[in-house]
Amino acid sequence: MTLQIDSSLSPFFAPTGIVLLGASPNPTKLGFGLARNLVMSGYPGAIHFVNPRGGTLLDRPVHQALTAVPDPVDLAILLLPAELAPETLAACGQRGIRAAIIASGGFRETNEAGARLEEACLRIARQYNMRLIGPNCIGLINTHLPLDTTFLPPPGPTPGDVAFVSHSGAICAAIIDWAKGQGFGLSQLVSLGNQADITETDMLAPVAADPHTRVIALYLEGIGNGRRFVQQAAQVSRQTPIIALKVGRYAAGRKAAASHTGALAGSESAFNAAFRRAGVIRADSSEEQFDWARALAWCPLPQGRRVAVLTNAGGPGVTAADALEAQGLQLAALSDTTITRLQAALPPFASLHNPVDMLASASPEQYAQSLHILLADPGVDSVLIVLPPPPMYATGGVARALIPIIYATHKPVVVALMGERLIQEAVEHFRAARVPEYRFPERAASALAVLARRAEFLARPVQMPVIYDDVRPDVVRVILDRQPQDDPAGLPSEAFGEMLAAYGIRVALLALAESKETAVQLANEMGYPVALKIASADILHKSDMGGVLLNVATPEAVTEGFITLVEKARAAQATAVIQGIHIQPMIPQGQEVIVGAVQDPQFGPVVMFGSGGVEVEGLRDVAFALAPLTPDDADYLLATTWAGRKLAGYRNIAPGDETAVRETLFRLAQLVSDFPELTEIEINPLRVLAGSKGVYAIDVRGVLG
Amino acid sequence: MTLQIDSSLSPFFAPTGIVLLGASPNPTKLGFGLARNLVMSGYPGAIHFVNPRGGTLLDRPVHQALTAVPDPVDLAILLLPAELAPETLAACGQRGIRAAIIASGGFRETNEAGARLEEACLRIARQYNMRLIGPNCIGLINTHLPLDTTFLPPPGPTPGDVAFVSHSGAICAAIIDWAKGQGFGLSQLVSLGNQADITETDMLAPVAADPHTRVIALYLEGIGNGRRFVQQAAQVSRQTPIIALKVGRYAAGRKAAASHTGALAGSESAFNAAFRRAGVIRADSSEEQFDWARALAWCPLPQGRRVAVLTNAGGPGVTAADALEAQGLQLAALSDTTITRLQAALPPFASLHNPVDMLASASPEQYAQSLHILLADPGVDSVLIVLPPPPMYATGGVARALIPIIYATHKPVVVALMGERLIQEAVEHFRAARVPEYRFPERAASALAVLARRAEFLARPVQMPVIYDDVRPDVVRVILDRQPQDDPAGLPSEAFGEMLAAYGIRVALLALAESKETAVQLANEMGYPVALKIASADILHKSDMGGVLLNVATPEAVTEGFITLVEKARAAQATAVIQGIHIQPMIPQGQEVIVGAVQDPQFGPVVMFGSGGVEVEGLRDVAFALAPLTPDDADYLLATTWAGRKLAGYRNIAPGDETAVRETLFRLAQLVSDFPELTEIEINPLRVLAGSKGVYAIDVRGVLG
Repeated sequence: MTLQIDSSLSPFFAPTGIVLLGASPNPTKLGFGLARNLVMSGYPGAIHFVNPRGGTLLDRPVHQALTAVPDPVDLAILLLPAELAPETLAACGQRGIRAAIIASGGFRETNEAGARLEEACLRIARQYNMRLIGPNCIGLINTHLPLDTTFLPPPGPTPGDVAFVSHSGAICAAIIDWAKGQGFGLSQLVSLGNQADITETDMLAPVAADPHTRVIALYLEGIGNGRRFVQQAAQVSRQTPIIALKVGRYAAGRKAAASHTGALAGSESAFNAAFRRAGVIRADSSEEQFDWARALAWCPLPQGRRVAVLTNAGGPGVTAADALEAQGLQLAALSDTTITRLQAALPPFASLHNPVDMLASASPEQYAQSLHILLADPGVDSVLIVLPPPPMYATGGVARALIPIIYATHKPVVVALMGERLIQEAVEHFRAARVPEYRFPERAASALAVLARRAEFLARPVQMPVIYDDVRPDVVRVILDRQPQDDPAGLPSEAFGEMLAAYGIRVALLALAESKETAVQLANEMGYPVALKIASADILHKSDMGGVLLNVATPEAVTEGFITLVEKARAAQATAVIQGIHIQPMIPQGQEVIVGAVQDPQFGPVVMFGSGGVEVEGLRDVAFALAPLTPDDADYLLATTWAGRKLAGYRNIAPGDETAVRETLFRLAQLVSDFPELTEIEINPLRVLAGSKGVYAIDVRGVLG
Repeated sequence: MTLQIDSSLSPFFAPTGIVLLGASPNPTKLGFGLARNLVMSGYPGAIHFVNPRGGTLLDRPVHQALTAVPDPVDLAILLLPAELAPETLAACGQRGIRAAIIASGGFRETNEAGARLEEACLRIARQYNMRLIGPNCIGLINTHLPLDTTFLPPPGPTPGDVAFVSHSGAICAAIIDWAKGQGFGLSQLVSLGNQADITETDMLAPVAADPHTRVIALYLEGIGNGRRFVQQAAQVSRQTPIIALKVGRYAAGRKAAASHTGALAGSESAFNAAFRRAGVIRADSSEEQFDWARALAWCPLPQGRRVAVLTNAGGPGVTAADALEAQGLQLAALSDTTITRLQAALPPFASLHNPVDMLASASPEQYAQSLHILLADPGVDSVLIVLPPPPMYATGGVARALIPIIYATHKPVVVALMGERLIQEAVEHFRAARVPEYRFPERAASALAVLARRAEFLARPVQMPVIYDDVRPDVVRVILDRQPQDDPAGLPSEAFGEMLAAYGIRVALLALAESKETAVQLANEMGYPVALKIASADILHKSDMGGVLLNVATPEAVTEGFITLVEKARAAQATAVIQGIHIQPMIPQGQEVIVGAVQDPQFGPVVMFGSGGVEVEGLRDVAFALAPLTPDDADYLLATTWAGRKLAGYRNIAPGDETAVRETLFRLAQLVSDFPELTEIEINPLRVLAGSKGVYAIDVRGVLG
C-alpha cells in the first residue's frame, strides 16, 4: 500500500527556497537564532532574509520587502509580532508562496485578540490556498535534507531514524537535547503549535514517506478530528510504527452521565480504543516512548514471545526473568542441543537453563559463542543480554565480540548494560552499531515486548467492521422522529428497545400497562410468571428504588404488584411522571453482561462491554472499542473482561451463548454508528442464555443528544 | 526508640584490625584486587596479609600463617579455594577472631560437595562463636569509615547517605558504578552471598545505626525467616526508610490449593503483606528504588499530597499534572494571595493557576521568585519544578537561583530537568546541593509520592494486633485432636465451623441429618424455610455440583430435597463418601464476602478478604494482610477491595455490618495465628447482614497441614 501524500504539504519537506520574515542581526533575538540555524543546518536550497531595516546577515543580503526576494521561494517562515502576521501572510500569498510556518506566539494561546489574529491568518491562508504550520511553534527539522527552521540553540539533533511530531515546542527542545545522551537520532521533527491549519494527522503520511524515518513518535495533547486521525494512522501504522505519548489524561475530569457507559467512557477510554484500532502504540512516558522507538527502529521483529536471557550472574538473571514475565513474554525452553552446546562452551558450574548464567568469569568469546548458540535454537525468538560490569573483562571487548553475531541474525537482540563508567565503552559500541541498550533489564524487557506486539499486529490481517444488512434504519428514524420537540431527551425506555429490535437485537417483550386491569390482561396473554417494572422516563435506575418485581405468578399478584410499584415510585421520586407498569415474561436464567455505547466528542461512537448489574462502576470490569466493530474488536472486548472470559463457563456457571453476545455487540455498534444522535444507549443487563439459545436485552436505557 | 544492635556484628562495622587470607601479589588475581582496595580505601586500622608463600605486597609484609599476624585483628577476609575455607576459618577461631567474610565461591551455589563445605564453615563458626558474611559474596564497603573489602575494580562508590544491602554481588557492582552517573553516593554496601550465617535481617539495625545512612535499599531474592524480618524491619523503618527491590516474583509459579484463598495467596501476596506491615517500601525496578532513595535521603517530608508545579512551558506542565494524578497526588489549589503575587512577578500571559507556566522567557529570578511565592502558600505541600532547556537562559543559572530557596524551606522540592547537554550544569548544581533531579516529570512525581507515603506512614501510630480473650483455644485443640491419624486432612466441614464458633465467629447453625426422617425432624425444630447442603468431606465445592438447595419450605420438600441431593452427589462423584445432608436455617439476605487464611511458608499466617462466591479467582477482588491483624490492616483490607468499599452501601445495595466484618477478620486471624496446623481455612460466603445485625459464616472449608 502506498500512502497518499497531500501535495500541498511538499514545500515543508522539500522546499526549493525559503524566506525568513523577521530575520534579525541581533544575536539575542530569536530572529537571529532562526537565521543562523537555517544557514548552519546545511540546507541546500535558497535562503532569503527579510527585515524592513535591510542590511546583511551572515554574509547574506537582508531584503527590505518580500517583493524584493528573488526566486526560488516556496516556504515562508514568519517570526514577527502577531499583529503583523496577517498582512505578512497575505504578502506571501501574493508572492505565490503556498506554505508558511508561523513561529511567533501571541495568538490563540494568549487571549481573545490573539485568537482573532489566528483566525485572520487562517482565513488568508485559505484565500491563497496556502498551508500553515503553527502559529506558536518552533517549526521543522529534517536532519537528512538537511533543514532546521527552529531558533533552538545549536547543536541540532543527530541525524537518525525517529520522526518526532509534537504539539509542544518545549518538549521538542527537551527531546532534541535528551536524545543526544540516549544515543539515538531524529529523521524529522515537527512542532505543530496551535494547529490553526495543519495537525498531527496531516503530518503522519509525509513523515512516514521519508525513507530515513523508521518510527514515528507523537507527543499529543489532544486530537481535533479523531476519526480522521484513526483512519490516517491505521494506514501509516501498517508501514511505519507509530508510538504516541498522549498527555492530559486527568485534565478532562469526570462528567455527569445518565448511563453506566456514559460514566465510565471518559475520553481516555476513547483514546485507548482509537489507538488500538489505528495500530498506534501508546507509551506512558517519554522514556518509554523512545526506549521503544529505538527497538522498533533498529531491530528485526521476533516470530514469537519466547526470550532467552544471557548473563554472567544470578541476580541480573532473576531480575530479567521477572521483567520478561511482567511484560507478558516467556522464558524460552532451550533445546537439548542448545544445552549440550552451551555446556561445551561454558565452565562447569554455569547455569545452562534459561536464564543462562555464564558466571562472572565469562569472556567476550564466551558471550559471543553463547549468543550464537542461543540464536540458533528454533525455540528462541529473541535474546536479552544482561551485562553488569564483568569483573575480569572490559565491557567494550564484550560489545565488540557480540556485535557481529547480532548483525548476522534475523532475531532481535537487546542489551541491558548495568552500570555507568565501566560500561561506557560498550554503550558507545552498541549505539554505533544500532543495537538497543538500556540501563536495566526492566526497560530492555519492555522493548522486547513492544517488538513482539508489533510483530503480532502486522501478522493480524486488516479486518472490516461487521455490518448486517437486515437492520431497519427506517424504523429507527421513525422512532427518533417521535421525540418531542420540547423535551429532547424524552423518549421512553421502550422506544430504545424498539430501536434495538429494529437492529436485530432480541429485547425481552415489554408491554406497557397503564392500569391494573390492563396489567392483568397482558400478563394473562404472556403467561405466568411475569416481571413487573415501573414505567417512567424520569426514573433511570429502576432497581435502585425497588421498582422491579420478579416471578409474579398470579393475576392477584399482578394487581397487588401494580399498586406497590406505583406507590414506591411516588415515594422515591414524587415529581416523576409515571406512565404505568411494564410487563415482561420471565426470561430463562443465564449470565448477565452490560453492552453500551456512547458518542465520544473526538472519536464518535464507542462501544462498552463488561460485567453488568448495578455494580458496573464499582467492579470496573469493562472494555471499550470504536464502533463499528471488527471481529478482532469483539475478541478484545471479550478477552480483556472477566464478563467476557466467563462466557466460556466457569465452575458451576454454565457457558453462555458467546456468538449471540458478539452479534449483539456488532449490531449495537452499527446502530450508534448509523445514528449519531443516539448519545448514550445501554443494555443492562443483557441476559446470555446457555448453549446457542441467544441473548435477551432485559433493560434498556438511552439518551438523545 | 533505640535500635538493639547485636554486638557480635560490630567487627564488621568498626574493625580494629583486618587480615586478608589469600592475598596475592599477582595483579590479575582477585586476591590482589582485594588487598589493593583494603589499602587504597584509606581504612584507618591495621591491615594484615597472609599467603603461605610470604613476601611483600603493596609495601607490606605477607605473613606465611595466621599465627604470625600481630594484634590487633578482629575481622578476617577469606579469599581462597573453598576446600581450604573450613580449616582456615578454624584457624581464625583459634586466633580469637570472631568475624569473617568468606568472599570465595565454590559452596552451596555450585553442587553438593560445595554445600557440605558451606555447612562445615557454619559449624566451625558456631563452635568458635564467630559471625560469618558469605560465602560467595563481594563483602563490605563503608565509605565513611572508610573500608572496602571488595575486589571490584576502582574507583569505589562516592561517599553518600544510601546503604545498600544485597543478595547479589553482581548487582552491587552494577549499582556502585551506576550510582556515579546518577549523582548519589553510598554510606554502606553489604553483599550477603549465600547467607550461611548473616542475613539481610541481621544487617538492618547495624546499617541503620550508621549516622551517615539516611535510607536503606535492599536487593532481595527471598527471605529465610519472614517473621523475624518483619519484626526487625518494622522497628528500623520507623527510624530509617527501607526500600526493597524483591525479585523472583514469577519464579515461584502456581501451586495447587484446596481453597480460593490458597489459590490466590502466592508468595508475592505474602511479601506485599509483610512489606506493608513492616513499613518497607517496595520498588519495582532499580531505577525506581534509587529515584526514591535520593528523595527520601535528601528531602524533608511533606504535610500532605497537594503539589504545585512550576514550569516554563505548557506541555511539560500537562505532563507533570498527569504524572502527579497518576501517583495519587493532587494539584494544589493556589490561594488568591499566591495568584496575585505570581501575577506581579510574571509576564501578562503567564498561566497563574497550577501548573504555573511562567512562559519560555522565564528568567532565573522569575524561577526563584515564583518558587518562593508557591512555597509560602499554606495550601502547597511540595513543589515539582519542571525545567526543559529555557530558550533564553542557561539552566545552570536557574539552578543557582533556585537552590537557596530550596535550602530555606521545610517543604520538599524536586526537579524534573528535561534534556541532556543543555541541562548538564544544572544537574551538577542540584546534585551538589542534594536536590533530587530527574529527567522527566513522571519520575519526579513518583519521588514526591513516596515522600508523601513516608510522611503518612510515620504519622500513623504503631498499632497492636486486635486479640480477643473470649476465644476458646482449648475447644479448637479438642476438635483438632479428633483428626484421624490415617487421613491428616480428614476433618469434616462442620469441624472447621466449630473452630470458628470457638473463636467467636457466628456460623450458620448446621445440623447433620443422616436420613430423610432426621432431616425433617431437624427442619421442624429449626423452623422453615431451611437450606439443604450435601454433607461430604470429599466434595469441596458443593454449589458447583448443585449440592445446595435453598428456601426449602415444607417437610415434604425436605424429604424430596434429601433424595435429590444424594442422587446428584453420587452422579457427580461416585467415589465420594456421603455423610448425609446438612440442614441450616435460611439466613437473612445481605452482602456476601470471602474471608480466608493460609499459612505462608515464609511469613506464617496471612489473611485474605474480598469478593466471594464462586468467581473469586475470576474477579481477583482480594487483599492480603499478615495475621494477627491490626485495625489498620482491617482498614486496608476493606479500603482496597470493592467488596470492602461496598459494605458502606452502593446504589440499591444496602450497607452491611462493617464492624462485624472487621471483628470476623480479627478473630479468624487470631485463630490461624494460634494454630499453625490450620494450613488453609476459608469462609465463603460470609453473609453480612444490614445495620448492626452481624455476620454469618455460611460455608466453611479448611485443610490441615
